[in-house]
Amino acid sequence: MSLTIKVHLATQFNDLNIIQYQTNRHNRRKFTNYDLKIRPRPIYSSSPLTVYRPKMNVDSVRSSVIKSSLIEPDGGLVVDLVVPKSERELKTVEAESMPRVNLTNIDLEWVHVISEGWASPLKGFMRENEYLQSLHFNCLKTKDGSIVNMSLPIVLAIDDETKERIGSSTNVGLVGPGGDLIGILRSIEIYKHNKEERIARTWGTTAPGLPYVDEVITPAGNWLIGGDLEVLKPIKYNDGLDHYRLSPQQLRNEFDRRQADAVFAFQLRNPVHNGHALLMNDTRRRLLEMGFKNPILLLHPLGGFTKADDVPLDVRMEQHSKVLEDGVLDPETTIVSIFPSPMHYAGPTEVQWHAKARVNAGANFYIVGRDPAGMGHPTEKRDLYDPDHGKKVLSMAPGLEKLNILPFRVAAYDTVEKKMAFFDPSRAKEFLFISGTKMRTYAKTGENPPDGFMCPGGWKVLVNYYKSLQSEEATEQAEVLAL
Amino acid sequence: MSLTIKVHLATQFNDLNIIQYQTNRHNRRKFTNYDLKIRPRPIYSSSPLTVYRPKMNVDSVRSSVIKSSLIEPDGGLVVDLVVPKSERELKTVEAESMPRVNLTNIDLEWVHVISEGWASPLKGFMRENEYLQSLHFNCLKTKDGSIVNMSLPIVLAIDDETKERIGSSTNVGLVGPGGDLIGILRSIEIYKHNKEERIARTWGTTAPGLPYVDEVITPAGNWLIGGDLEVLKPIKYNDGLDHYRLSPQQLRNEFDRRQADAVFAFQLRNPVHNGHALLMNDTRRRLLEMGFKNPILLLHPLGGFTKADDVPLDVRMEQHSKVLEDGVLDPETTIVSIFPSPMHYAGPTEVQWHAKARVNAGANFYIVGRDPAGMGHPTEKRDLYDPDHGKKVLSMAPGLEKLNILPFRVAAYDTVEKKMAFFDPSRAKEFLFISGTKMRTYAKTGENPPDGFMCPGGWKVLVNYYKSLQSEEATEQAEVLAL
Repeated sequence: MSLTIKVHLATQFNDLNIIQYQTNRHNRRKFTNYDLKIRPRPIYSSSPLTVYRPKMNVDSVRSSVIKSSLIEPDGGLVVDLVVPKSERELKTVEAESMPRVNLTNIDLEWVHVISEGWASPLKGFMRENEYLQSLHFNCLKTKDGSIVNMSLPIVLAIDDETKERIGSSTNVGLVGPGGDLIGILRSIEIYKHNKEERIARTWGTTAPGLPYVDEVITPAGNWLIGGDLEVLKPIKYNDGLDHYRLSPQQLRNEFDRRQADAVFAFQLRNPVHNGHALLMNDTRRRLLEMGFKNPILLLHPLGGFTKADDVPLDVRMEQHSKVLEDGVLDPETTIVSIFPSPMHYAGPTEVQWHAKARVNAGANFYIVGRDPAGMGHPTEKRDLYDPDHGKKVLSMAPGLEKLNILPFRVAAYDTVEKKMAFFDPSRAKEFLFISGTKMRTYAKTGENPPDGFMCPGGWKVLVNYYKSLQSEEATEQAEVLAL
Repeated sequence: MSLTIKVHLATQFNDLNIIQYQTNRHNRRKFTNYDLKIRPRPIYSSSPLTVYRPKMNVDSVRSSVIKSSLIEPDGGLVVDLVVPKSERELKTVEAESMPRVNLTNIDLEWVHVISEGWASPLKGFMRENEYLQSLHFNCLKTKDGSIVNMSLPIVLAIDDETKERIGSSTNVGLVGPGGDLIGILRSIEIYKHNKEERIARTWGTTAPGLPYVDEVITPAGNWLIGGDLEVLKPIKYNDGLDHYRLSPQQLRNEFDRRQADAVFAFQLRNPVHNGHALLMNDTRRRLLEMGFKNPILLLHPLGGFTKADDVPLDVRMEQHSKVLEDGVLDPETTIVSIFPSPMHYAGPTEVQWHAKARVNAGANFYIVGRDPAGMGHPTEKRDLYDPDHGKKVLSMAPGLEKLNILPFRVAAYDTVEKKMAFFDPSRAKEFLFISGTKMRTYAKTGENPPDGFMCPGGWKVLVNYYKSLQSEEATEQAEVLAL
């Protein structure tokens, strides 16, 4: 039986090399692509596909309401730590009497992430017990003994002075960068922030120049404070993009409303080019072929901290809009939303977080590409991570067994077909890899990328952005010269 | 019921702060010492103790044979990779035709470790799949879906030239430092050895000066070779200590022979002082109080690579013998044996390996102290690890739930009672901590340590060792001056 499944999937997903699980709870194991065998003419019976489907007949369900049933959130419930309106005033008064902890912008992004349940079942910043499990095992053991994935330490640092100010208090008030009271951390625990160890175990390097380390960890205090979080009201950024920021529960509701029978998530922090689009559309086509009636794409750009040379969120959101407007992706079957997490650029460790958070938001398929969450080594001329380790580690990660992982072959510009296509090693010379740097050079110099690399509307957004950067730089340079 | 257990254990083990588990398979969780509550006058009934006992009545068992039943080895079987005598000749001929990989002394220690099943269910040097799980999750998922602990990458490095020489061969012959054929590695896989990442994720630092890194990793090749190991004959060192080197199966047999109903392991790489002895004897006393009839101590010094300023193995073994001769430990209830693993000095990561290997050797209780497998930071004036992290991480470690972990309070010299005693913070000033450095200074200068620090016979062994070192140094210095 399981063999039949493998054969069918291999045929269906020969570009995607789907990783598949047996569903027997006591005998679960992953099949890697090495296990897959191609059968030339698959017979499409429905039975091999049931493993991917919610446990209900789609037709009978259409007349009722599907309730976020595609995949369970970690811990069984999507955590929601926003105080009900009725209690807000009372809790605010209470919080005002507590010692205060000041949040940076990135701390606030984590408050946002935790409060909406992206990190379910985590209910606040990690105490040492959770921190150590995350650091050493990339997962947490829950009270009922089950394992949930938790690869990044989600922690709040404080300095000596703040620690002293807190003294023996049990609860603290959290103050946003604007000076406003954001929330409460209860039953706190303060423990040492060994930055070197945290960095080494999270990134697998301590080389200087890691963006999140330089921005967040190095300037942070020598203590971590964990506790149970309460947020006085939903976190908003008032940047014109808040309507894109759907919480995991809102996303689950939206998938229900659209009667999705499969949700496939695509994490990105870059503009969407036609290679990405090829992959997303191809995934959808294949899910349909497999028997799903209504697979929905969650196009899910990361909205928190990114490094200085990444394209900013507002520009990316405008670019993504154009991709949908230009019809490269189908708005009917696509939800564009912002994932509020900051970016660590921690490769195989971080990709687990990216996938886990999407499980909590209701995605049961996760697309993973070459070198997810990777970057160049900050001091050596090489990739920081082996480009294949991301998908390998993700496929092994404890707590993510329930997620269907879709590793994909890299797409590149096919100079013969004049379009983005899955890279074919047998005619490698006919493919052109357009890196982020290359793309920036095109946009800056006003040169057009090869036809078919990106839809014209989306490309225009990028050209305008880089032009504005250049004129800013010119102005700055002029100012410097004038001094 | 579980509450009763906790209360009793807390009362029994108030010096040891035992960490206890519920045995319900589907609802397993650890109780940390924070859960424990002291009840002033415990009632000793037998039922709360059954959790620690093998699933048989001890009295009825005494008349039959106990078969290594105290704790299951990881994967259910102790791995044994030594080729049967009858096949030795044939396999040797076969190995001679294979490309060769040269082993260092420390590689050979790992061959020894793997071949005897200390790392069960590992059957050879890790392939990438196992390496990545070890590095990221400190555990491996076995074929049946269960988790075993595996915190250290057990890998074999080769250089570019060797890789080229191997070419597309599937099997290689392993050649010892003396040039003799040691074994075969079959169905090999060669993958990149990213030293920086391996070091950072294993040690939580990349600071220069880590002993194992300097000795083993930095000089090693840029490739790792994994595969299934076969050893042509048992590994022997011919250093007069081989009789101390019992394999996990031999230890299990010895525990059976002695009809042990509990085995508590004590890992060490230093001479045994009376603080250690206090702790081991106290553990035995408490196990007896708990109802065990015949708890056996496995005094298990590490015999592989140690750093230059640690006391060498032969001196330690002589010192341990004296401790037993002097009656500080009871030979009737103690087994002294050598654990053949090399030392990583990787603190919380390594202590899991130390515990896991002892599970495979049949120990169901593991004593863990302050800062296990720790050392000073190689470049900063501090401990490399938080001294409490070792026991915390060990108590959380996936795959070690079946092991009873006995964290202990630190022992120090009580200057009032004039003996080693458990440190009492309420009269901290009356305690003297005698570090390794301090001990060396005593021994070198011929000064006696405080009365009751170590048995006289054991101390004499150390004094002689350090004297011999000094005369060696003097000779070397004289030779240098003579040049």
